[in-house]
Amino acid sequence: MAEQPTILKPEEIESESFRIIDSEIGPHQFDEQQWPIVRRVIHTTADFELAEQMRFSWNVVEQAVSALQGGAKILCDTNMVLSGVNKSRLVKLGGSIACHVADPQVADEAKAAGLTRSTFALRKGVEEGCNIFLIGNAPTALFELLRLAEKGDVDPALVVGVPVGFVGAAESKGALIAADLPYIAIEGRKGGSAIAAAILNALMIQAEG
Amino acid sequence: MAEQPTILKPEEIESESFRIIDSEIGPHQFDEQQWPIVRRVIHTTADFELAEQMRFSWNVVEQAVSALQGGAKILCDTNMVLSGVNKSRLVKLGGSIACHVADPQVADEAKAAGLTRSTFALRKGVEEGCNIFLIGNAPTALFELLRLAEKGDVDPALVVGVPVGFVGAAESKGALIAADLPYIAIEGRKGGSAIAAAILNALMIQAEG
Repeated sequence: MAEQPTILKPEEIESESFRIIDSEIGPHQFDEQQWPIVRRVIHTTADFELAEQMRFSWNVVEQAVSALQGGAKILCDTNMVLSGVNKSRLVKLGGSIACHVADPQVADEAKAAGLTRSTFALRKGVEEGCNIFLIGNAPTALFELLRLAEKGDVDPALVVGVPVGFVGAAESKGALIAADLPYIAIEGRKGGSAIAAAILNALMIQAEG
Repeated sequence: MAEQPTILKPEEIESESFRIIDSEIGPHQFDEQQWPIVRRVIHTTADFELAEQMRFSWNVVEQAVSALQGGAKILCDTNMVLSGVNKSRLVKLGGSIACHVADPQVADEAKAAGLTRSTFALRKGVEEGCNIFLIGNAPTALFELLRLAEKGDVDPALVVGVPVGFVGAAESKGALIAADLPYIAIEGRKGGSAIAAAILNALMIQAEG
């Protein structure tokens, strides 16, 4: 059996990972607020290609940090995102987070309409007054959010738009980037729940100062 | 705002995604038991590169399906993996799944030893008699499993070894592939909790027959 590497303490594993990412990334255009977020996404996926596909609306990190410091009400589209978010950090910042995709009422409405549960789960989050949206899986949730924002039913402080997949994901993120909302997004097909959670966790670290 | 694509029914989204993956993958060496698993991993990540890095031990899918049909006792290394596993499928197959990484006793032991919680959480799963192990995040959990298997303390029916990262992940998966255990693994740095869950979900679909 191969020897286990000698770096084993949890805090050393993370700092050594960041050192490796910094040494391999090469020249990039991210500013000092954006880079810790991109780096955490690479740390979560080991996929440097994502750095080329990450997009930030103007001043979004500052706006998101400010919203988090004010006690944000967050909606996410999957229970995997919910699991990945650091809840002790969020509670310290006075925030909360919910996911309604497994809600029985949401399931009934979706079945009746022949649409995704993600669409109705998003609608419920908007009705509850959520102001930060983490979309790691469902293009239909992101499209529904954009539709409600265009109608004026919601004015998000941040949209993390990173749904993954082959049907609608790239299109939904293109629509987000074209809309006039504060966003962090990954262009193209890639993304996922772990990435959505990683972006929020990186923002909370900045919000803690 | 861009138009939402017209394919919206959940079951159509999945089948259309699989059709796209089948059309883009090109020639590959996976057999008809392995391909549905690789395809679901690509579906979860939109990363075709993973197909080149997926490794299966001899006859592992048949062995894993048989273990799942017998009511497997599964341990996973993160709560994200736990969230991503289809629990209704697992219950129908008579199986169970646990994650001990947030267990207070595990945290105390890890702190006292200056090692990761994942190491002690894995040890607890072995003590409880788990026979399938899903490692999506922690190389230290995978190394601990290999150490205990080498000692003869555990004889897994399946090890899904897909920890992601820059410190120890590739080494831990290399050690798994070199060991004499039934495994599904991703060589190199890539992997993650969503992938670990996707592999189990694909296996359960085959186990349902």
